[in-house]
Amino acid sequence: MNGKKGSFEINIPSIPKAKMPGNGKKSSGDDTAFFSCKVWIWNVWEFCKEDSNRVVFSLKVGLAVLLVSLLILFQAPYKVFGTNIIWSILTVAIVFEYTVGATFNRGFNRALGSLLAGILAIGVAQLALSTGRVAEPFVIGISIFLIGTVTSFMKLWPSLVPYEYGFRVILFTYCLIIVSGYRMGNPIKTSMDRLYSIAIGGIVAVLVNVLILPIWAGEQLHKELVASFNAVADSLEECVRKYLQDDGSDHPEFSKTVMDEFPDEPAYRKCRTTLNSSAKLESLANSAKWEPPHGRFRHFFYPWSEYVKVGTVLRYCAYEVMALHGVLHSEIQAPYNLRITFQKEIQDATTQAAELVRSLGKDVSNMKRTLKTALLKRVHSSTEQLQRAIDMHSYLLTSNYEPSDSSKPLPKLSHTLSSTLYDLSNQLAELDKTDLDQTLNLTNQNPPPPQTESYHEMMRKQSRRLHSWPSREVDAFEEEGSFSADIMIPRMKALESTAALSLATFTSLLIEFVARLDHLVESVDELSRMAKFEHEGL
Amino acid sequence: MNGKKGSFEINIPSIPKAKMPGNGKKSSGDDTAFFSCKVWIWNVWEFCKEDSNRVVFSLKVGLAVLLVSLLILFQAPYKVFGTNIIWSILTVAIVFEYTVGATFNRGFNRALGSLLAGILAIGVAQLALSTGRVAEPFVIGISIFLIGTVTSFMKLWPSLVPYEYGFRVILFTYCLIIVSGYRMGNPIKTSMDRLYSIAIGGIVAVLVNVLILPIWAGEQLHKELVASFNAVADSLEECVRKYLQDDGSDHPEFSKTVMDEFPDEPAYRKCRTTLNSSAKLESLANSAKWEPPHGRFRHFFYPWSEYVKVGTVLRYCAYEVMALHGVLHSEIQAPYNLRITFQKEIQDATTQAAELVRSLGKDVSNMKRTLKTALLKRVHSSTEQLQRAIDMHSYLLTSNYEPSDSSKPLPKLSHTLSSTLYDLSNQLAELDKTDLDQTLNLTNQNPPPPQTESYHEMMRKQSRRLHSWPSREVDAFEEEGSFSADIMIPRMKALESTAALSLATFTSLLIEFVARLDHLVESVDELSRMAKFEHEGL
Repeated sequence: MNGKKGSFEINIPSIPKAKMPGNGKKSSGDDTAFFSCKVWIWNVWEFCKEDSNRVVFSLKVGLAVLLVSLLILFQAPYKVFGTNIIWSILTVAIVFEYTVGATFNRGFNRALGSLLAGILAIGVAQLALSTGRVAEPFVIGISIFLIGTVTSFMKLWPSLVPYEYGFRVILFTYCLIIVSGYRMGNPIKTSMDRLYSIAIGGIVAVLVNVLILPIWAGEQLHKELVASFNAVADSLEECVRKYLQDDGSDHPEFSKTVMDEFPDEPAYRKCRTTLNSSAKLESLANSAKWEPPHGRFRHFFYPWSEYVKVGTVLRYCAYEVMALHGVLHSEIQAPYNLRITFQKEIQDATTQAAELVRSLGKDVSNMKRTLKTALLKRVHSSTEQLQRAIDMHSYLLTSNYEPSDSSKPLPKLSHTLSSTLYDLSNQLAELDKTDLDQTLNLTNQNPPPPQTESYHEMMRKQSRRLHSWPSREVDAFEEEGSFSADIMIPRMKALESTAALSLATFTSLLIEFVARLDHLVESVDELSRMAKFEHEGL
Repeated sequence: MNGKKGSFEINIPSIPKAKMPGNGKKSSGDDTAFFSCKVWIWNVWEFCKEDSNRVVFSLKVGLAVLLVSLLILFQAPYKVFGTNIIWSILTVAIVFEYTVGATFNRGFNRALGSLLAGILAIGVAQLALSTGRVAEPFVIGISIFLIGTVTSFMKLWPSLVPYEYGFRVILFTYCLIIVSGYRMGNPIKTSMDRLYSIAIGGIVAVLVNVLILPIWAGEQLHKELVASFNAVADSLEECVRKYLQDDGSDHPEFSKTVMDEFPDEPAYRKCRTTLNSSAKLESLANSAKWEPPHGRFRHFFYPWSEYVKVGTVLRYCAYEVMALHGVLHSEIQAPYNLRITFQKEIQDATTQAAELVRSLGKDVSNMKRTLKTALLKRVHSSTEQLQRAIDMHSYLLTSNYEPSDSSKPLPKLSHTLSSTLYDLSNQLAELDKTDLDQTLNLTNQNPPPPQTESYHEMMRKQSRRLHSWPSREVDAFEEEGSFSADIMIPRMKALESTAALSLATFTSLLIEFVARLDHLVESVDELSRMAKFEHEGL
């Protein structure tokens, strides 16, 4: 066996120097050991402070096993229960889970599994006894083989996978009862004793778990969902901010970034965690269903599965954020001066959308039900403004200028056209003072090269570009035939002229994100309705 | 407790009529029961046929527990081992896992956990004995509490989470040994007996698992990765095919499709499964690391973790497919006649990209290492053709025509312009016969409305549109003040004129997908190098 996996290494995450106790100037052997010990204690302390439930859980497990052990350590209960009580200890160790719901679930699996196994074992044992002394071991052996095969097969069946542990319990409890019954006689007494002690263990585990500072899966699920809302909103804002801030000078290679942790983008990493949290939400919801009404979740049949549904819709929104992030770190990039043309509109739409997502998260968090109509409309109108702005200046995206040198301002601007645009802006100002004025003013600050040349001029340009292409891309083809021993992986070249379309992609994805928000609002509303959140402002 | 979860319902997936045994014409009660029983058997049969390893695994578990039980059922071994042998049964039931690697891993956890617990228990028991008869139970009780607390805390530590089971084993083995040692005396004998029987159980489980038709985690991981490659390629092709086939007439509501299973898109569902398979790949790789060299994987320290890395890069490609799928089902949609303008180029790039992905998958599957340079270059050149086509016809994306009625052909085509384009096509044909000819011919078949109107005409149009906007969207604002009791969720409206940009988004995402393929090729190459795949064609 490979020993590498067996070493219980603790990866100590790097801690900012300022936070560390001591300054570690001396570097003698003893000091280093002392220092690393201090760091270790510091880490454990931080880990506990991060979530005090961890300490609570650990102490509760200790208490539960202690309570069960007392039944053996004290003379009086030991006389009643005998050595079978060690099964209680096993049960506590196996049944005790982090949350109340998960403990109930496991306890149920163990209880039902033991019960079924006990009934089966008693039945088969009676049958084996009636077949006589010679046939008995054969009947028992065959029954063990059959139970082993059937339970193992059943736990592979997709809809029974959640009960995997129950099938394990059936298998070993059955074997234990029937085999010890065969050797010690009286299988009914054996199984009853075992069930007693398992029941005691289960009851102790459940009581300690529920009565002493319970950790509810429902509460965890609730918090997890609220945190996801905030993660998506933060990540959206961070992504857009970086897109608009980026001066286009430092585009790290995709290969370096695709697998990267993006240390400068904490919100993105949180959002990516949200994408992978579907299994966590589901298992929490699964556990929460087992919990009685508690704390803020006071009515029976609380719609925990709705939380998972909201989480799924939120994840579909997060997919768009991932795509936006993909554009941000894409190799094909619109030049900076083009990107900031729509800065205000993009920023507006983003801020509104993030605010809506956060407000939804806050509503869920406070268990309030508020009307989102006004907020939604504001998001829509700012998105529509963005669409209008793009629509008006869509010729920018067709990029008849050369955007390769992004540090220069947009070229080829004739003064006449600029002033024409300005005139138009004055004429149109009365139409929609708030929206269009800003749009056009912004355009004047970063005036685009309008596509108003004659048709022939345009075609001449295009034909010139066509001429220039083969020479620009010839290196992509020149190695076609040569197979060098060292494998050469050619890089894809983006035509510079299509780079501008990357901005179109970014805004389209942003608009699609907003479009999906409708469904997020709907699903949160459905949750509020089913969970009977308090109605506010009506 | 909620009984709902306890019902062991088997969800029978719907089966096509033709496949079902019998025709079920009679509908009397008996017949129905008989029929549903037949369906059930049929399902089980299909489930086994899908992966015969499932049956093999089940039979192996049965065999392993039978073998261990024989040690008790036969007189001779029973006399040697005594009743302690029931611990072997428990061990088999708990240690036996689906794959060889997972069994090794669990066995290791159990062995090391038991060993540590045994050593600890013997130490503490000696200490407790030396403190005298009165203090002994207190020392034992306190030690149980401490062990329970510490193991529970340690298994929450992120880097120790994979050894969760080991900590459970330490806890209950420690409790069992120290408590039964206290009651029965001689803790050393108790712990040795228990370790013996656990070792027997572990050895039987491992031998049966490895020697009889072993199911290797490495083999499963290998197959899983290859299947992911095919899923991504299929899904890409399916998505693009639907995008180009779609006649724009039936766009189901996003709300209906976002959470939908997309029954008509089997490849997409497989691809979505790929996205969620990261945990599966990781756990398989984790198990595979425990396996000795076997079958096709003949050298030590086979780079299983590289499989996970390739899987991650592949997942980043799959994100783009998800985004493409999002555009396909987006509410903001480019009209059909615009979409098919670039049909050939999109189709070409897609086919080449899918072929490359499939060929990578095939290489991994056959454990060959081939040069992908030629294929990559072909993908790049077809993507560049797509970029060129978009670049040349980018004015289409600025949409100065009204794309609202997508059933009509593209309007406002003057004959002169069409023939001018055709002339140009002839002039340019000699430049790049293969590429451009096709591009331009295609354009002639679906002639676009060129943006060659005078500047004033263009501005007049835009201003007209600006006039028309408020009236078009007035319904989005008219309800601003009114709060009805029934919550109204307004729908976002997409400006028709920005719909054309959705095509730009689609193609940009496709191009970004191709850009990511470079890194996929790189990571597969890294895997081939580290896993020493056979070199071919060099």
